[in-house]
Amino acid sequence: MSLLVMKFGGTSVADLARIENAAQKVKAEVENGHNVIVIVSAMSGKTNELVGWVSETSPFYDAREYDAVVSSGENVTAGLMALRLQEMDVPARSWQGWQVPVKTTSAHSSARIEDILPQNINAKFAEGMKVAVVAGFQGISPEGRITTLGRGGSDTTAVAFAAAFGAERCDIYTDVDGVYTTDPRVSEKARKLDKIAFEEMLELASLGAKVLQTRSVELAMRYKVKLRVLSSFEEQTDTAGTLVCDEEEIMENRPVSGIAFSRDEAKMTLVSVLDTPGVAAAIFGPLSEAGINVDMIIQNISEEDAGKNITDMTFSCPTDQVARAKKALDAAQASGALVFDELIVDENVAKVSAVGIGMRSQSGVAAKMFKTLSDEGINIKVIATSEIKISVLIDRKYMELAVQALHDAFELERA
Amino acid sequence: MSLLVMKFGGTSVADLARIENAAQKVKAEVENGHNVIVIVSAMSGKTNELVGWVSETSPFYDAREYDAVVSSGENVTAGLMALRLQEMDVPARSWQGWQVPVKTTSAHSSARIEDILPQNINAKFAEGMKVAVVAGFQGISPEGRITTLGRGGSDTTAVAFAAAFGAERCDIYTDVDGVYTTDPRVSEKARKLDKIAFEEMLELASLGAKVLQTRSVELAMRYKVKLRVLSSFEEQTDTAGTLVCDEEEIMENRPVSGIAFSRDEAKMTLVSVLDTPGVAAAIFGPLSEAGINVDMIIQNISEEDAGKNITDMTFSCPTDQVARAKKALDAAQASGALVFDELIVDENVAKVSAVGIGMRSQSGVAAKMFKTLSDEGINIKVIATSEIKISVLIDRKYMELAVQALHDAFELERA
Repeated sequence: MSLLVMKFGGTSVADLARIENAAQKVKAEVENGHNVIVIVSAMSGKTNELVGWVSETSPFYDAREYDAVVSSGENVTAGLMALRLQEMDVPARSWQGWQVPVKTTSAHSSARIEDILPQNINAKFAEGMKVAVVAGFQGISPEGRITTLGRGGSDTTAVAFAAAFGAERCDIYTDVDGVYTTDPRVSEKARKLDKIAFEEMLELASLGAKVLQTRSVELAMRYKVKLRVLSSFEEQTDTAGTLVCDEEEIMENRPVSGIAFSRDEAKMTLVSVLDTPGVAAAIFGPLSEAGINVDMIIQNISEEDAGKNITDMTFSCPTDQVARAKKALDAAQASGALVFDELIVDENVAKVSAVGIGMRSQSGVAAKMFKTLSDEGINIKVIATSEIKISVLIDRKYMELAVQALHDAFELERA
Repeated sequence: MSLLVMKFGGTSVADLARIENAAQKVKAEVENGHNVIVIVSAMSGKTNELVGWVSETSPFYDAREYDAVVSSGENVTAGLMALRLQEMDVPARSWQGWQVPVKTTSAHSSARIEDILPQNINAKFAEGMKVAVVAGFQGISPEGRITTLGRGGSDTTAVAFAAAFGAERCDIYTDVDGVYTTDPRVSEKARKLDKIAFEEMLELASLGAKVLQTRSVELAMRYKVKLRVLSSFEEQTDTAGTLVCDEEEIMENRPVSGIAFSRDEAKMTLVSVLDTPGVAAAIFGPLSEAGINVDMIIQNISEEDAGKNITDMTFSCPTDQVARAKKALDAAQASGALVFDELIVDENVAKVSAVGIGMRSQSGVAAKMFKTLSDEGINIKVIATSEIKISVLIDRKYMELAVQALHDAFELERA
């Protein structure tokens, strides 16, 4: 008997009518001959309500109690979905994380799944159950306490179940109908991708295309889980959504698959840093300890000034971390560990990235990207590259223009 | 280390401010040197919301899924209460039914507690935990599924924990400040009782004084758990509330401790029933199968009519069961199992009862009750008695008058 995993996010189970809509999609797969494991999120808004109560009760809360409270939203949806399926004559039952069990680390509120034991659920499938409805986002620690996996964790639950049960596919139902070449709100030429490679999806996810939790994509890549992203509000067809898969399954690798962007970037430049051995550690050590997500880094060529080596050091980080980063660097200077003249912060920047596994084998992608931006009169402030990604920092006011120009230049509107 | 059980009902934990108020009372007991097991209900309204969703999703729901959904309300309160106590520097943690574990039967949505294993909680007390906050109303079945104990089940959870842990006392915090000689809304002379015997409380609970779930009183009586009912909205003192205890602990047994009543009673009379051996079974068998809670029963002396024995049979039941009772009796007649001329239903009756363990040793209570009602011109329609209770069915319009007159006659306003 082939097995599918279907995951429904908060907006897809927001109320009883939407739970029914989701249940219809599950029933259709059962009628196609599948057994199904359904992973559900909390009804949208519920988790925020519970988190609000916890924070109001205890600002620096015990994460174990946070998990005990916040996990309850998924339990409600799981029971209601099982009932809805039963009403449709589909043999179904609900499972909470500890009942499966989903074994996790003890890192409460951001636990990692260590093991999923399939015996209990498989025994019920053997007895005739067609659908196991599992509360997503949660598990049980070695101490027997409830854990949660962090926001968006139900995606990871879904992929982990698909891996543990050897599912044929893992379908992630959400409120968008797939992964696009870029955000349709920025370029009307944006096109839905039928397939995308795991590596590309990882770059897109971490660049801010919030379709899937990054961890779930990593897990799918490691265990070769075929992942499909599709809308719960559209008709189910064989070509619906976007398949996230191994690059071997994608016939033609174009150099660029998508243009991602992030508005919330800031550029910080340390001017006239005294360039001694270990200066990079003196800068990025304190930033790391302060929890700053440093992204791009550039060091200018060192110059000699009055017998000392002097350089400028530039990096980018999310805008909401600027104040903390400044504080960490000022403290490093005050302690004498770091010497610099000035710290210049530019919060009017945006990051634009071209992503594509085809870059590995095709040259000239960077040159084409830089020329396109230059033709539009857009100045590049910082450049960073990986094997399958080229990112640039530019003035924020040019962001939309840059995305549209690059989308055109790489002909992403063509299927 | 002495141990207390404290139970807070839905109105006592209705919002974060009330949870804080309840936590203050728990902290005060910890400062008095007690370890405490706190049993919490769902925030008021939450259980009804969840039950509503279940019923709307599936009118004839799978009780196992009902339990999985509805139990989540208590889990939220337990976590929030533990967090609130931690904020007050009281070492506390939450426990869900399956974590304790609270072992129950598999009778979902009306399960009975079979065993509570104290090891896990006691191990945490030994490590320095002062308060275990336990989600009430729930347990785990032999199959590993979540069960609930029926509405009001948190009272039973509290008493069962007090018995299992040998608690010094079980305090039930609610929105009334104790048990009264009668409903203060009916008689302004109603007086709060300092003590009441288990047997009396059982009669009052089943007669409609909805302070405690009947089952919790039975359990407290069996295991000799000292039970105190008190308000969570008043100052805690040694004489607060009402102590429900063994009759030996009550110094002076007055003949009558309280006057209970129930508005929602109906009287049904089967006229000219053919009185054959087994006629009672032919009447009350079908009623029992239809789930009718028959209360008082009277059979008139049989008369001979045309060579057959003919009698009238009268019984009472809750008004909302009248239609079902009628249907069951009509069906019995149609099948030939039962022969009667007519079924007369009187829905304008009320039940008034005098309850007191002193009746066992003092005579003349019934006579005094009947004379009091007679002096007020109130006609008694049906009488039923137990060892410690005398109940009468009267016209509903005289109910308040009867309660007030009996309250006066037995001098219940005097402490």
